Amino acid sequence: MLINRRTLRIEWGQCDPAGIVFYPQYLIIFDTSTGCLFERTGLSPSAMRKKYGIVGMPVVEVGARFVQPCRFDDAVIVESEVGEWGRSSFTVRHRVLREAELALDGFEKRVWAGPHPEREGAIKARAVPAEISASLSDATGRTTVMLD
Amino acid sequence: MLINRRTLRIEWGQCDPAGIVFYPQYLIIFDTSTGCLFERTGLSPSAMRKKYGIVGMPVVEVGARFVQPCRFDDAVIVESEVGEWGRSSFTVRHRVLREAELALDGFEKRVWAGPHPEREGAIKARAVPAEISASLSDATGRTTVMLD
Amino acid sequence: MLINRRTLRIEWGQCDPAGIVFYPQYLIIFDTSTGCLFERTGLSPSAMRKKYGIVGMPVVEVGARFVQPCRFDDAVIVESEVGEWGRSSFTVRHRVLREAELALDGFEKRVWAGPHPEREGAIKARAVPAEISASLSDATGRTTVMLD
Amino acid sequence: MLINRRTLRIEWGQCDPAGIVFYPQYLIIFDTSTGCLFERTGLSPSAMRKKYGIVGMPVVEVGARFVQPCRFDDAVIVESEVGEWGRSSFTVRHRVLREAELALDGFEKRVWAGPHPEREGAIKARAVPAEISASLSDATGRTTVMLD
Repeated sequence: MLINRRTLRIEWGQCDPAGIVFYPQYLIIFDTSTGCLFERTGLSPSAMRKKYGIVGMPVVEVGARFVQPCRFDDAVIVESEVGEWGRSSFTVRHRVLREAELALDGFEKRVWAGPHPEREGAIKARAVPAEISASLSDATGRTTVMLD
Repeated sequence: MLINRRTLRIEWGQCDPAGIVFYPQYLIIFDTSTGCLFERTGLSPSAMRKKYGIVGMPVVEVGARFVQPCRFDDAVIVESEVGEWGRSSFTVRHRVLREAELALDGFEKRVWAGPHPEREGAIKARAVPAEISASLSDATGRTTVMLD
Repeated sequence: MLINRRTLRIEWGQCDPAGIVFYPQYLIIFDTSTGCLFERTGLSPSAMRKKYGIVGMPVVEVGARFVQPCRFDDAVIVESEVGEWGRSSFTVRHRVLREAELALDGFEKRVWAGPHPEREGAIKARAVPAEISASLSDATGRTTVMLD
Repeated sequence: MLINRRTLRIEWGQCDPAGIVFYPQYLIIFDTSTGCLFERTGLSPSAMRKKYGIVGMPVVEVGARFVQPCRFDDAVIVESEVGEWGRSSFTVRHRVLREAELALDGFEKRVWAGPHPEREGAIKARAVPAEISASLSDATGRTTVMLD
């Protein structure tokens, strides 16, 4: 899969009294990193919502393992890629590296969701457009794993 | 004016590596405290939006002075009241007390805002309903100061 | 196990443009809920750190599944309990209920950690004190599952 | 004064159900922007703390005026400069621009603070080192305003 890389500096307000990143902050980083990955399709988040009529890509499951703490002012690299494509869901895998070593990794399982045709305010999963999944796969044509 | 009091405990994730509350967290507390104050009108935030057709009470100005730091696990009292009523705006004053001493105080100037009648997505200030300002004034009938 | 219950109201600042809770906010709720659960030992978070000489209970793994979204002003109940006790680690299970239905559940695997005896700034897992695990088990004496 | 410019994209998690940036998020941006400005001295935040023996630059006063809302995915420019230097305090002024128009401006009054020589855990204001204030002044040698 296509891997998106971001370089970030850990901010003061992301850290707790133990001097390390307060762990929910990493999930905020995951969320934004997924947005950055999906821009590699050529569409901004808002353009994608508009073009495909989706309300977003809500998270249905999340997980993370913390290996080494990061601290204020640390430079980290966030690597994000789609790990698996389902019909209407997909899993984004994130790795945060500090000095080339894994600090944490995690995943977000998300759903490609449009407005529900009958129930106002509710959402309904839709099939991920083929060009979206294709554009986030790498040039080698490695087969993508189908989830559901 | 009617003063709303909340008792809070400072949370781990609100504190920074210096062991004290990361100051933007106080503004989050202000925002929620204003919501609690306005519930004293008898309407929940969403009920108030619905009844009066407003989109909310956006903040146009904010300020705070920090006197003493608060730390993880500190019990604090947040006192909130409307300081001044304007025609379509008002100022909420907040004080955060720790062990009966002032830790910080601040204000939010907010606008009573409905959807703009002509420009989609924009908002327009509206007159604050008299029953709203009356219900947040105290029983002594102290005259409210008019701002604009 | 002893279950700690908290009642919360979803705050404006916890919600995103889709009108639902921004999911990392739930992890902040998990973190604070674990703190509340551990106060049921009779010790405040800071008193526990002092008494046992620990630096905290850092999270080594986290996971959550989101079933129903919560919105601004929703009243939710957070139920937290230790799911499994290991020698130096434990898993806290959290459930968030809205109108008596499950909105999400998740877990935090945490380590009982003191300062590392040799490497400054580093931490070292320690055995969870027996009275801590006992005080968070229920009155029926249900056997606790040992993890590692 | 030397002006530091950062370009940011508004993140999903920074926005509220009204679709605009939740205002305390701007204060988080202010805090980080001050850190970026002070790196123009040639020292990282942690290096500065170490070299001068300070515990940080705690905020004693903050204020902001919100002119136009920013939304998810908006590109904004944050301009930060020291507005006034005092003996041991200084004011950082921030402007956030969107499409070359002012979205908000604000300030943080901060103190150059070291550990208190007598009271453990407390801090004490110290004189801002001359080379720090000099390095954040512009090349034209414009006189800096003294505050206190």
